[in-house]
Amino acid sequence: MGIDYKEELEGAAKTMILVHEPDTLIKLIVRTIVQKVGIRHAGILLHQKDKDTYILTVSRGTAGLKIPAGFARMDADNPLIRFFRENENKKLADDDVIVYEEARKLLSKNIPQEKIALLKGALRQMEIFETVACIPSYFRNDLLGIMLLGEKKNGKKFAREELNFFVALTSDVAMAIRNAQLFRELEMELDKKERLFIHTTVALTAAIDAKDHYTHGHTARVTDLSLQIARRLSQKDKKDFDEKFLEHLHIASLLHDIGKIGIPESILNKEGPLTDEEKKKMHEHPIVGSVILQPIKELEAAILGVKYHHEKYDGSGYPEGLRGDQIPLIASIISVADTFDAMTTDRPYRKGLSKDEAIAEVKQVSGKQFDRKIADTLIELYQEGKI
Amino acid sequence: MGIDYKEELEGAAKTMILVHEPDTLIKLIVRTIVQKVGIRHAGILLHQKDKDTYILTVSRGTAGLKIPAGFARMDADNPLIRFFRENENKKLADDDVIVYEEARKLLSKNIPQEKIALLKGALRQMEIFETVACIPSYFRNDLLGIMLLGEKKNGKKFAREELNFFVALTSDVAMAIRNAQLFRELEMELDKKERLFIHTTVALTAAIDAKDHYTHGHTARVTDLSLQIARRLSQKDKKDFDEKFLEHLHIASLLHDIGKIGIPESILNKEGPLTDEEKKKMHEHPIVGSVILQPIKELEAAILGVKYHHEKYDGSGYPEGLRGDQIPLIASIISVADTFDAMTTDRPYRKGLSKDEAIAEVKQVSGKQFDRKIADTLIELYQEGKI
Repeated sequence: MGIDYKEELEGAAKTMILVHEPDTLIKLIVRTIVQKVGIRHAGILLHQKDKDTYILTVSRGTAGLKIPAGFARMDADNPLIRFFRENENKKLADDDVIVYEEARKLLSKNIPQEKIALLKGALRQMEIFETVACIPSYFRNDLLGIMLLGEKKNGKKFAREELNFFVALTSDVAMAIRNAQLFRELEMELDKKERLFIHTTVALTAAIDAKDHYTHGHTARVTDLSLQIARRLSQKDKKDFDEKFLEHLHIASLLHDIGKIGIPESILNKEGPLTDEEKKKMHEHPIVGSVILQPIKELEAAILGVKYHHEKYDGSGYPEGLRGDQIPLIASIISVADTFDAMTTDRPYRKGLSKDEAIAEVKQVSGKQFDRKIADTLIELYQEGKI
Repeated sequence: MGIDYKEELEGAAKTMILVHEPDTLIKLIVRTIVQKVGIRHAGILLHQKDKDTYILTVSRGTAGLKIPAGFARMDADNPLIRFFRENENKKLADDDVIVYEEARKLLSKNIPQEKIALLKGALRQMEIFETVACIPSYFRNDLLGIMLLGEKKNGKKFAREELNFFVALTSDVAMAIRNAQLFRELEMELDKKERLFIHTTVALTAAIDAKDHYTHGHTARVTDLSLQIARRLSQKDKKDFDEKFLEHLHIASLLHDIGKIGIPESILNKEGPLTDEEKKKMHEHPIVGSVILQPIKELEAAILGVKYHHEKYDGSGYPEGLRGDQIPLIASIISVADTFDAMTTDRPYRKGLSKDEAIAEVKQVSGKQFDRKIADTLIELYQEGKI
């Protein structure tokens, strides 16, 4: 007998490996099985490694027969799980599979008392799930999962050949699912590390900020503003900035004033205008910042933002007097955000401007101090009430 | 005709999904094919997405026939690649496969001139590789790779059924490899993020260190010493510390003095003993540090090290006067490393001790200031010349 759904199911199984969202994957598979094989319902019990528990991850089928996913949960001492995990039981079942009707017959045979108890327990579980066959899947010696198959709609039994096919399929499925889970875990780990990095940098720069009594919260505001400008710029150009660019801009904004750690508190917090000598010291901070970060290869692109955020479009800035397009875009964006925030904040020697006044000044120096395109973007955001 | 190697190859392919080292995986597969199928050599050309190039990733077989891996590299305009990538060619080949002998026959048939040129080019490539059959593998519409099969050792041709089997196998193999590559990429991304985090934290804490003229390099030394102590402790206890613990200790050591950012430079760099008021300010730094890091959930375990690294075993430390086992292990380790480094470093009001003298003092206060087990470990490392 040929299995008419075989090719279709194999085809579906084939591309499973590269589907890395476990939920999508599992639902897809179980739905396909229910439809193609014409059974009343099917489900997959999957191993949750951390709790050593098997959870009915998905279940599809005729209403009333469908057990809510996550509802059924079996510990390692559940008889169905033990049956498949304890190696010596394998010889009881044909090819590792439990077929309800056949397994019942075993009960009257000459097998050890404790095996009878175990098997009875396992069969009771199958009754609860209205399952006629259970197909385990292993990787190395670990039981990864169990596929539960309900009755066929046409009332026929599963043929041996069909069961063999399901053994192969379940194994593919369980491995694909395990693979997807591992992928997801790794992605979550990556997200966590990213958050840790950003949050720690935020905490440390905020602490450094706090040394400079007059710039409290400056770093956070500049970061927020820079990212807003960049996103808007990218919309206007109708081309998305590379995600990487935004990431570098984020880090560069956070770290743009890091070099101020090299400036004595007496200068940072001086009440009154700075002397030429003190100004010179102050103007070193972009270079000091870039030197601090230099050893970090991954920050190469971000360092450009730190080093050049005090350059001006007409070449009158520092440290190198770069002009126009010589100034890296990342630095030009931070420059506008940084200056706008500085203008609107009180300083030892002057009161801060209102946003209105600051925007008027930005307009005036646009094309001189600032790249016109970026200054215009800031003005736009202001006019829309976004900043 | 049955294929006698089919089951074995399928079995090998089955567990491929969860092998996440691409190199191991590819070598395993090609070696198995060469052995089981009895062919003179086999290889796999794999797509390198970033460069849109196909590289002969592995090649196995009789000496002299084996092409060094990485040696052959085909761009997207190579006729063999184009043949498989341009959709309209598929109808030329049977089931997407090129079998050298059959494809040659096509040349004399009535097919368009440019197809003849393309096919000739592809066949020339096959001659160079002494390949009798090329089997492509796709995911969605992308050509992931091509399996190259050499002649059978027994001189027979590949049967249709065998080729069909190889089409299925190649597809599994290419997907498993692609999966492994994606996994590897994600792992590398994670490593990169980890390095970025550690390096940035090192740079920022070193910069903060530099404010305190008398503790230059202190953080780096304490970090190194703490990790050495922890590794030795774990060897002695014959149980490995959790990797996580070492990670937390690493971060906590880097950040242990971060709260000093809240102490005025005038106190940090004062030449002469501190007043009671100044000492009080100085003693706030573990709390200030823990407050700075508080918002970062992922640092919960590390913060314990920051907050309690000035507690003493007999309860006479600060900020909370914890004693004995109340003091988290992570803090007790940093405490020993921190004190030892402070003792051996020159301070404004006193010259540093020699290591010999410092160790003598550590012995004296062991069990009072320090957890005896940790102090002993430091002494051990010193006696072995490790510190």
